[in-house]
Amino acid sequence: MTTTHLIEQIHKKQSFLCIGLDVDLNKIPKHLLNEEDPIFAFNKAIIDATHHLCVAYKPNTAFYEAYGIRGWKALEKTINYLNENNPEIYTIADAKRGDIDNTSTMYAKAFFEDLGFDSVTVAPYMGKDSVEPFLAFEDKHTILLALTSNQGAFDFQTKTVNGVELYKQVLETSKSWRNSENLMYVVGATKAEYFADIRKIIPDSFLLVPGVGAQGGNLQEVCKFGMNDSIGLLINSSRGIIYASQGDDFTQAAASKAEELQVQMKEELQRYSS
Amino acid sequence: MTTTHLIEQIHKKQSFLCIGLDVDLNKIPKHLLNEEDPIFAFNKAIIDATHHLCVAYKPNTAFYEAYGIRGWKALEKTINYLNENNPEIYTIADAKRGDIDNTSTMYAKAFFEDLGFDSVTVAPYMGKDSVEPFLAFEDKHTILLALTSNQGAFDFQTKTVNGVELYKQVLETSKSWRNSENLMYVVGATKAEYFADIRKIIPDSFLLVPGVGAQGGNLQEVCKFGMNDSIGLLINSSRGIIYASQGDDFTQAAASKAEELQVQMKEELQRYSS
Repeated sequence: MTTTHLIEQIHKKQSFLCIGLDVDLNKIPKHLLNEEDPIFAFNKAIIDATHHLCVAYKPNTAFYEAYGIRGWKALEKTINYLNENNPEIYTIADAKRGDIDNTSTMYAKAFFEDLGFDSVTVAPYMGKDSVEPFLAFEDKHTILLALTSNQGAFDFQTKTVNGVELYKQVLETSKSWRNSENLMYVVGATKAEYFADIRKIIPDSFLLVPGVGAQGGNLQEVCKFGMNDSIGLLINSSRGIIYASQGDDFTQAAASKAEELQVQMKEELQRYSS
Repeated sequence: MTTTHLIEQIHKKQSFLCIGLDVDLNKIPKHLLNEEDPIFAFNKAIIDATHHLCVAYKPNTAFYEAYGIRGWKALEKTINYLNENNPEIYTIADAKRGDIDNTSTMYAKAFFEDLGFDSVTVAPYMGKDSVEPFLAFEDKHTILLALTSNQGAFDFQTKTVNGVELYKQVLETSKSWRNSENLMYVVGATKAEYFADIRKIIPDSFLLVPGVGAQGGNLQEVCKFGMNDSIGLLINSSRGIIYASQGDDFTQAAASKAEELQVQMKEELQRYSS
């Protein structure tokens, strides 16, 4: 999916919500465990109940790999279901991959070609030749980790490198990479005050923003400092939506939580479009 | 597998060779493509021909994920084959994972529990709480990327953070993490002159060293600066061994290349034990 198409969807749905499909069999409603594929059954139910409220879904691969082949099959079924039934939805493989050049190409093939995701998250530690193989794919996005939402972000990302914080160095350096127009960035909502500085370096790029809700980030603050003329934000919520209820009403509860966010997003879109 | 057991195996086999199982269907002998599972058939043949010459195998997960479920099945068969037939072999999932805490736990379960690897490579960018979930597993190692063997290593890893290069900061900081005795580190052989400094920070840890051979690293230099009283080195070779021939003689050619390295390693072990 192109960036233009994504922006159109945001305006149409008045939402820049991304829903994280991080399925833990210990947390889904018990009755689904009797299904042939409980992970996919859960995802399908969540997607059917919420797809009109969001523009993107983001399965985190860890939750699928933990269940081995069964998990990988559920991931494949989920992305196929989305691509067949909701082709207007933007899909993100939250995989945080990255390796030397020919190896990164194999990862890119896995997520872009074999599975058919629109984008994949990538870690920057190994530098240019670990990221450019992902960027080589047309109409696909590479979402580079910049400033993550966890406590460990302060271990290295915010340390000063040659006078500037490492995550800013990552933003700045990555702009010079081949096909850098295919880059988006992960920036955690828990550090909303950083968004103003970030926008000075990458004014036009889309940001994937985890950490709203469960991790304490504030939607209004993120929009104030992070939104640009093309919106430029995808706000992710995972647990806060998909585990809103573990009872029979889990789909309604998820839709209700998603709608709460969508309504807030609509307000923000109106605030900044006027 | 414990570190003590690994050291015993190194002395017994007079080898600290790790063979990278990075299977690309475009590079394996053509006749294997008729097998039901060409990837596993290739790995099994390579393992059978080389296991007496090395102490470890390291499948890089990218090469399996690129083939989807078929690839993941081949990875599962490969690790099961190793654990059943060669339990004395140390196994490394070269996955370069890392995510926020509960998510890293899922990755750790995937590689340590579901697949049964002895170790997994992890990227440090997300800091302490992205790595500690891996370290929590007893008798398992977490192999942290420090200084990688690719050109992109100079983009961020060697940049100066608070007066010290980022990769040294990673080494130093990681020593304070819970169960840090379960850490090993990736240090590329292409930068042998860095090993002396690295040993000042982590004198006792094992280092997984890619980049000997195909990428230009020198075994003798790495041993001179990197070896410690417990050997402390696992030298990886992938393409130089497994693709030594694409003909019917591929197993003999692989064994021959592995033996060349093993003989050199034996010399190094004798040099530094005398």
